[in-house]
Amino acid sequence: MPRTIKKRSDKAGLPPGALIHIGEQRAENVRIKIVNYDEAQFQELEVSNVEECLQFKDKPNNTWINIDGIHQVDTIEKIGLYFNLHPLLLEDILNTDQRPKVEDYGDYIFIVLKMLFYDDQENKTKAEQVSLVLGANFLISFKEMGGDIFDSIRERIKNGQWRARKMGVDYLAYSLMDVIVDHYFTIMEKIGEKTEDLEEKLVTDAQREAIRSIQDFKREMMFIRKSVWPLREVVNIMERGCSPLIHESTYIYLRDVYDHTIQVIDTVETYRDILSGMLDIYLSSINNKLNEVMKVLTVIATIFIPLTFIVGLYGMNFEYMPELKVRWAYPAILICMAVIAISMLAYFKKKKWF
Amino acid sequence: MPRTIKKRSDKAGLPPGALIHIGEQRAENVRIKIVNYDEAQFQELEVSNVEECLQFKDKPNNTWINIDGIHQVDTIEKIGLYFNLHPLLLEDILNTDQRPKVEDYGDYIFIVLKMLFYDDQENKTKAEQVSLVLGANFLISFKEMGGDIFDSIRERIKNGQWRARKMGVDYLAYSLMDVIVDHYFTIMEKIGEKTEDLEEKLVTDAQREAIRSIQDFKREMMFIRKSVWPLREVVNIMERGCSPLIHESTYIYLRDVYDHTIQVIDTVETYRDILSGMLDIYLSSINNKLNEVMKVLTVIATIFIPLTFIVGLYGMNFEYMPELKVRWAYPAILICMAVIAISMLAYFKKKKWF
Amino acid sequence: MPRTIKKRSDKAGLPPGALIHIGEQRAENVRIKIVNYDEAQFQELEVSNVEECLQFKDKPNNTWINIDGIHQVDTIEKIGLYFNLHPLLLEDILNTDQRPKVEDYGDYIFIVLKMLFYDDQENKTKAEQVSLVLGANFLISFKEMGGDIFDSIRERIKNGQWRARKMGVDYLAYSLMDVIVDHYFTIMEKIGEKTEDLEEKLVTDAQREAIRSIQDFKREMMFIRKSVWPLREVVNIMERGCSPLIHESTYIYLRDVYDHTIQVIDTVETYRDILSGMLDIYLSSINNKLNEVMKVLTVIATIFIPLTFIVGLYGMNFEYMPELKVRWAYPAILICMAVIAISMLAYFKKKKWF
Amino acid sequence: MPRTIKKRSDKAGLPPGALIHIGEQRAENVRIKIVNYDEAQFQELEVSNVEECLQFKDKPNNTWINIDGIHQVDTIEKIGLYFNLHPLLLEDILNTDQRPKVEDYGDYIFIVLKMLFYDDQENKTKAEQVSLVLGANFLISFKEMGGDIFDSIRERIKNGQWRARKMGVDYLAYSLMDVIVDHYFTIMEKIGEKTEDLEEKLVTDAQREAIRSIQDFKREMMFIRKSVWPLREVVNIMERGCSPLIHESTYIYLRDVYDHTIQVIDTVETYRDILSGMLDIYLSSINNKLNEVMKVLTVIATIFIPLTFIVGLYGMNFEYMPELKVRWAYPAILICMAVIAISMLAYFKKKKWF
Amino acid sequence: MPRTIKKRSDKAGLPPGALIHIGEQRAENVRIKIVNYDEAQFQELEVSNVEECLQFKDKPNNTWINIDGIHQVDTIEKIGLYFNLHPLLLEDILNTDQRPKVEDYGDYIFIVLKMLFYDDQENKTKAEQVSLVLGANFLISFKEMGGDIFDSIRERIKNGQWRARKMGVDYLAYSLMDVIVDHYFTIMEKIGEKTEDLEEKLVTDAQREAIRSIQDFKREMMFIRKSVWPLREVVNIMERGCSPLIHESTYIYLRDVYDHTIQVIDTVETYRDILSGMLDIYLSSINNKLNEVMKVLTVIATIFIPLTFIVGLYGMNFEYMPELKVRWAYPAILICMAVIAISMLAYFKKKKWF
Repeated sequence: MPRTIKKRSDKAGLPPGALIHIGEQRAENVRIKIVNYDEAQFQELEVSNVEECLQFKDKPNNTWINIDGIHQVDTIEKIGLYFNLHPLLLEDILNTDQRPKVEDYGDYIFIVLKMLFYDDQENKTKAEQVSLVLGANFLISFKEMGGDIFDSIRERIKNGQWRARKMGVDYLAYSLMDVIVDHYFTIMEKIGEKTEDLEEKLVTDAQREAIRSIQDFKREMMFIRKSVWPLREVVNIMERGCSPLIHESTYIYLRDVYDHTIQVIDTVETYRDILSGMLDIYLSSINNKLNEVMKVLTVIATIFIPLTFIVGLYGMNFEYMPELKVRWAYPAILICMAVIAISMLAYFKKKKWF
Repeated sequence: MPRTIKKRSDKAGLPPGALIHIGEQRAENVRIKIVNYDEAQFQELEVSNVEECLQFKDKPNNTWINIDGIHQVDTIEKIGLYFNLHPLLLEDILNTDQRPKVEDYGDYIFIVLKMLFYDDQENKTKAEQVSLVLGANFLISFKEMGGDIFDSIRERIKNGQWRARKMGVDYLAYSLMDVIVDHYFTIMEKIGEKTEDLEEKLVTDAQREAIRSIQDFKREMMFIRKSVWPLREVVNIMERGCSPLIHESTYIYLRDVYDHTIQVIDTVETYRDILSGMLDIYLSSINNKLNEVMKVLTVIATIFIPLTFIVGLYGMNFEYMPELKVRWAYPAILICMAVIAISMLAYFKKKKWF
Repeated sequence: MPRTIKKRSDKAGLPPGALIHIGEQRAENVRIKIVNYDEAQFQELEVSNVEECLQFKDKPNNTWINIDGIHQVDTIEKIGLYFNLHPLLLEDILNTDQRPKVEDYGDYIFIVLKMLFYDDQENKTKAEQVSLVLGANFLISFKEMGGDIFDSIRERIKNGQWRARKMGVDYLAYSLMDVIVDHYFTIMEKIGEKTEDLEEKLVTDAQREAIRSIQDFKREMMFIRKSVWPLREVVNIMERGCSPLIHESTYIYLRDVYDHTIQVIDTVETYRDILSGMLDIYLSSINNKLNEVMKVLTVIATIFIPLTFIVGLYGMNFEYMPELKVRWAYPAILICMAVIAISMLAYFKKKKWF
Repeated sequence: MPRTIKKRSDKAGLPPGALIHIGEQRAENVRIKIVNYDEAQFQELEVSNVEECLQFKDKPNNTWINIDGIHQVDTIEKIGLYFNLHPLLLEDILNTDQRPKVEDYGDYIFIVLKMLFYDDQENKTKAEQVSLVLGANFLISFKEMGGDIFDSIRERIKNGQWRARKMGVDYLAYSLMDVIVDHYFTIMEKIGEKTEDLEEKLVTDAQREAIRSIQDFKREMMFIRKSVWPLREVVNIMERGCSPLIHESTYIYLRDVYDHTIQVIDTVETYRDILSGMLDIYLSSINNKLNEVMKVLTVIATIFIPLTFIVGLYGMNFEYMPELKVRWAYPAILICMAVIAISMLAYFKKKKWF
Repeated sequence: MPRTIKKRSDKAGLPPGALIHIGEQRAENVRIKIVNYDEAQFQELEVSNVEECLQFKDKPNNTWINIDGIHQVDTIEKIGLYFNLHPLLLEDILNTDQRPKVEDYGDYIFIVLKMLFYDDQENKTKAEQVSLVLGANFLISFKEMGGDIFDSIRERIKNGQWRARKMGVDYLAYSLMDVIVDHYFTIMEKIGEKTEDLEEKLVTDAQREAIRSIQDFKREMMFIRKSVWPLREVVNIMERGCSPLIHESTYIYLRDVYDHTIQVIDTVETYRDILSGMLDIYLSSINNKLNEVMKVLTVIATIFIPLTFIVGLYGMNFEYMPELKVRWAYPAILICMAVIAISMLAYFKKKKWF
């Protein structure tokens, strides 16, 4: 459950806009990749020093600055200084506990997204926060970790045959969002397979730990839902919003991202319904098992308890029990008991108890 | 569950608008049927070559191009090229995982629908995606599979006595939607019959697998709901939408489709409620069965355990047990036990245990 | 469940506006009653021929045509022809599977309502569809069956002292709606009594079939809700709607119908809550019964099993069991067993097991 | 449950606006209290005759007419006549089955409220309907019963040092609403205490009738919710409504009533959640009890059944059972059985079964 | 549950605006701290006498008056008099049972907040009401108790390097709200830890009292939800509201508070879901335990009851039972019984009963 809420109490009492990194601490260096392009040219470089970003600030063509790692607060602070970003915005970038949201600061638009990935070691879905700052001719993207998810986009810009060269940084921002949302489907497929496995197991053999697995899945769904749900609103606002930073030609693309987001949410809801159905199956299977156990006990006990009474009867030591002297009494009693047992079995058979 | 989410992960990383067919692969050829008509004349032909569609493009009278099969990407691509369709639109046609939706592209309106049909082999409802592109004087419809569902409409146009000859392609688009929505009622009737069967079985004999059937039905409902629910919004948007492509005289017809859609959704909700009621019946019947089993055990055990104690008592080997010598002791004991047994039976009878 | 969805599949494939009667087939003749009135005069006649309606069409005073029976399609068709009604409207009149709705066709307003009545034979609530077509100075009402529900209104108009003589056909339409909605309360009272009976039975003796009764009631509620709920919207639209056919002075009356509708819906919701409470009572009573059964078994078994062991002990045939020879051993053992039995009973008494 | 729906079926078939009293019949006389006041003077009288109200109608200063008892239809009818009230309004006053609502009739505003009181005899919450008619300089209040709830307000006006003398009848109307809403808190405290008692009992000793008490509480909550919930809307409408009858200076007071109403609704919701939690506790306690019963049975049976087998073994009458002749066999067997019993007890102890 | 509803019945019957303190009574003195500042200067003093506040009223620079303790009604009354506050506002300050809300009185804005803190003694979350009155150049804050939560803000103003010196009292009001909301995260972490502990215990050993703990947690959540949820609306209104008292530059900060509030609410919802999952685990674990108990009983009983019958059989005293005389009969019977016992064990093993 540490995933549910991150440690934010350190912040209580600090002035608003105080820059503190909330999230996993990392040792790796922050990596900064810059892409500068327009229809005519393309330039790509990886800088180690945040000051080098500055030179691209006032260039007329499009600049995309991608920052992998937000654990070095001073890097973020400098970027904020150079590009004139609001302190609250910087605070939000550093606080990896944000919900997806969009905020229009006038000169730039701030977008927070959650990238989901599946951690095979811990066997659960995790989220990485991606923040985008979209200006008139620059886009700055902040990621918590490295990873090659944006490489394909960089490649496409480089190849030049792509729309983005013509369409401005708002289209680039869309492309990043599109990549992230497309990735959700991969996660959903993974979850889908795991759910099927669980269901298979539930049907063949409802183990006691199944309830735990179901609950774990439920939380997984809650986690994904929480990460994806607000995104719907984000894209909606961007689409309707009349910021001059987003060109009308990009709207149709945003609508596409919106559609995909809705689809992911639909799938999450479907899985939630499926999981609650599994719970019903599980609970009823516990009761069914109890029924089965009780039937075994009842069949055995009901057959033998009367018989035991009969044999006890003739084990009494009364002096005057005339039947004890009768020669055929013993076989007669045996036959009689067999009849009782068989008729009881027939009764249970009729009741479909076994 | 493969139905719940289709394999989309192949697309992750591709540029937006990349044309990849997501859905079942088919071997059959794509079939293209063209109908060209106005009030005065009617022409119908089936072409094998997508280029032949082009000649109808600039004709002043109405053209309906129906394409059965979307698995040949290049066909779709060419259509897109000839009719100047947006790449994202083409992507949506190929991706059979869309929710029903409507998008106004200015020169044309794009509508995605789900046609439901019942697969008797697999014994479950399936959906086929139908995409419509409605232009000023043309309508292009894309279906995943062949099938004769639109034949009746073609026939009606041919016979000429029908409104569609006068009313333009928007009325034609409505007619297609109407046919699809009318078909939902057939599905609902099928489901209704199956639900009644299940309920019948549940009441007469609550088998263990009933819970599975209930869950399967629930998913069926979820699936249908997911396919039909957004359609409500689609028709709503079209009705309110002020696109010049849809004439005011068609609005009243769209309202009719809307009404039918609401009715289908109502029925789905009703079935969901009924199914959850069935679950309650099922769960309580498990418990009732346990009760019954336990009553049998309790009646038998409660009667015979005390009797067994009594016969055990007189089976003891103490030397000084005066009653053993008494002549009438044995019959007295027998009578005494009979009295105990009968009074216990009376007690259970009174408690309505059997 | 045949009530849940009517057979509509016959319609699939037919052109929109095709007139087919969906509903119960009847043999009785269609009956047409015409009332023509204004402040000064009143005329009432029952015609057998639909053509006779035509003479009233262009009269300046108010005309109310009531048609009992919609199973003769040609009658409806003729009415449609004479009064210039839209084909889709006629289709909706014939299709008794409509939800309550209101549609403004400009020259006339179309209203669909559900009249509920309680079928004592089948012991369940049924609905009859009532359609109203409200024109400038005429009102046509269509009912599935005969019945005297509108007679009181006709009487009131005849008596002349009533508002309707002054207020136009919109007030008449309101009066019909009012009668129908007032009738809902009668149904609710009936259901209320039945619910009380069921609850009484549930408390005194939770029979196995109670779960079925609860489910039946639930469906009854679902059915009524489905019939009444959309009516709320209908009256709302009429009240707000700025159709010139409805005079402002009638608005306050429509608001009254609206209030009554809300009250019925409130009551339905209350019953749903009560029914779900009953389900809880029922389920817990099953478990309580099991508890009771098990307590009886446990008390009996726990007392006699140890005693049976003891008597078995002294039934062993060892040669050297010195206590068997002791004179007072037998009574001592008897006393000892009585003590065990009594102390166990005391223990169970303390635990409040009986 | 008679409370859930009142007998309204008498009304079905009557013309709208027909005055029929729906509610409890009373024998007491209707009492009419009139207060006439402005900043300068104050006059209070109790009249027996409704005609006497008339003299105050056209006086320029404020008049408050309070009517205790609505079971005499002619009184209400006369008031309606004198003050020119709409027939539907009068119908609503007489029908005590109204939901709280507000209606603006232009010359006057009509407000329906529910006053809750706790009936200690029947041990449940009941509601009394209070209707207010707010005109330009008069306020007429109708109550079902007598009672002193409004006396404090009359007193305050009399004492003269109170705002109401200056602020007009809209402030007076607010004061009445405020008194009624304040009274809800008293009811909620009563319910709160009873809920605590029930919970206490549930924890110490979950009796079988607890489920009934929980359900009774749930209905109490449903009843209060139904009475209070629409009030929220009422005050909201009055606050926003631009009727000239309500002065702007009164708005802030209405907002206060609104806040209190929300608080009551919040508390009701809280109790509903608490009650559903109690149900969970109750159900799990039933199961826990069953567990306990079964553990006792199992411990006793599991210990003694094997021992009984052993003693039965040596009770067999075979001629050649050499151990029966051995001198130390009997004590050895006794020790052996003691070991079995003790080790079983240890096993159950380890499993924490007792 | 005393927390659920405070004693308000004392107020019923009093005129609106009557000042009565509803909440815990305290003995400590009310403490008043005044901070007066602008960009150039800073002054801080603690006064014992409420009259001393008056001197700051008309100063042009910013004044923050913080009042710790609201149990002395006359202090609040005087403040109200000096600063011209509405009686209803004062009533709300004294009534600690308010929901968070904002009210615009024109000259000042009134804000009610709930500060949450965790009471380690009683082991539950509690709320303290904080009321803010925001005027043109003054802010008055009322707290129920002392406590140092606002000290950090006072410190920051003093240090002077902080925005608040420039930005006016609306920014100060925001700062107080921010501190309170930041504190919620600390509470959520505490709750998070406790939930994890509970879950741990639930999995390892589902005690009977677990259900109580779960219910207690649920109420904790309900309580926090009730305290935080309306805050969302409050900040929303302030942000959109066009009061001249809040400068546009503060809007972005309010949006930040809004975001944090949403995050807290999200977490509360998550915990509610987790708790309902725990309930499922608990309930199924009760049933699982019962299953286990029954299996032990069934295994033991099923093995020994038939054997006991057999030994009883040969304990009968019939004269003619030839097998009793056979030499190898006894060992044969022993072997036979061992075979029965072993095969039964094998059967249960196969069924995975132990």
